[in-house]
Amino acid sequence: MKKANKKINAAIIIIGNEILSGRTQDVNVQNLSKWLNDLGVKVEEVRIVPDNEIAIVHTVNFLKKRFNYIFTSGGIGPTHDDITSKSIAKAFKIKYGKHKEAYKLLENYYGTKNFNLGRQKMAMMPIKASLILNPSSGAPGFIVDNVYCLPGVPSILKSMLGGLKNKIKGGKKILSRTISAQTVESEIAKSLADVQSKFKKVDIGSYPFFRLGNIGVSIVIRCSDKKKIDECSKEIVNFLKNKKINIIVKK
Amino acid sequence: MKKANKKINAAIIIIGNEILSGRTQDVNVQNLSKWLNDLGVKVEEVRIVPDNEIAIVHTVNFLKKRFNYIFTSGGIGPTHDDITSKSIAKAFKIKYGKHKEAYKLLENYYGTKNFNLGRQKMAMMPIKASLILNPSSGAPGFIVDNVYCLPGVPSILKSMLGGLKNKIKGGKKILSRTISAQTVESEIAKSLADVQSKFKKVDIGSYPFFRLGNIGVSIVIRCSDKKKIDECSKEIVNFLKNKKINIIVKK
Repeated sequence: MKKANKKINAAIIIIGNEILSGRTQDVNVQNLSKWLNDLGVKVEEVRIVPDNEIAIVHTVNFLKKRFNYIFTSGGIGPTHDDITSKSIAKAFKIKYGKHKEAYKLLENYYGTKNFNLGRQKMAMMPIKASLILNPSSGAPGFIVDNVYCLPGVPSILKSMLGGLKNKIKGGKKILSRTISAQTVESEIAKSLADVQSKFKKVDIGSYPFFRLGNIGVSIVIRCSDKKKIDECSKEIVNFLKNKKINIIVKK
Repeated sequence: MKKANKKINAAIIIIGNEILSGRTQDVNVQNLSKWLNDLGVKVEEVRIVPDNEIAIVHTVNFLKKRFNYIFTSGGIGPTHDDITSKSIAKAFKIKYGKHKEAYKLLENYYGTKNFNLGRQKMAMMPIKASLILNPSSGAPGFIVDNVYCLPGVPSILKSMLGGLKNKIKGGKKILSRTISAQTVESEIAKSLADVQSKFKKVDIGSYPFFRLGNIGVSIVIRCSDKKKIDECSKEIVNFLKNKKINIIVKK
């Protein structure tokens, strides 16, 4: 299928007190963003909210009208603090209950004997949701309209993305090039701003780094048009050369 | 000073395309959350927004009325994509310009000879802002009302927190205890929900883990009242023992 030329965007909602308290370092934002970027979907906002129904309902309802895709992570497990499924049903004002397909799938996965009440809870969701299959641990995620609900455990979330790929219709992929130079931001700020104002459709980011005893700046050029990236990159390389600044990496 | 008994909350705004694109893994949320938690401030929402003035202004204006403290991270450097200072001035409708104290401080830090235009930009901010000193790299952060603006580079951000401590008036510190048990969530979901409904003021979270070949669940009990944590913890340990579930760690 030919990809649409228009921009397709997404927002991510991370649901979980453990992220807000600092107990757990979130990595799902980065994993999802990279994956979506490869599909031509640009993540334009992330919100991290607590395990609180009002917060989840409000956030989902606000964002689902403003972005093409919403991805949620967390809160679809079997315990009392897993309230994402119920909250999504509330947000959409649709029926929450035993999802027949999810129930069968889980019963099959655990075996009738081990399919206890806790596990049965994971089949409780908006009853008309489409399922997102889970190859690592059985319990499915689900889709309602443009909202895709995934679990919080990073390895499980990642394992579910493969099966989801064909359901996302991205726009043009955002390409990126990085030029890392041995300098400090203030030395190149003016030249970089000049290049940015010449290339309005290119997004130029400047990120200082301090690693392996080196200091430097990574200049990241992002755009869906490879030609524009080439032109922009050329101008940046030129001014770096004129300033006799050493280019460490260009990729 | 005796700490207030009431709840004090905060929101964090991470500003930067590099986080949304997945290029950079954010760690400032976790660092800030832990630090605030120790001061008795509960982070209740995080938003990650792009280097876009409208997005920053809207987000700051929405959150600053709803939370006691707002912390922003990113976008206060010398390059064209650093637009936080200007955006904060816009959000508050206050004058943006050369901040005299910041200018002197930076001039002193770099020496008059090396204080180029790029570096001078870092003295551009709401002119009546209070400064947050930066022991690692000179360029200060700033405070307008309840909004605290910090840089995006994690090591620099962390180095600035020390000087900020006395400016934050926290409430009662949220204490936490973790009980890690060799089980799966569905085995304990019902008992855990029963304990949660008995201890309404305690926040019990359940987080499965898969590490070192072990699977287990970490049960995290959070509350500002140590006695309540003790009581709640006791009930959880009891039901785990009754179920003959091995407790791996309790701390």
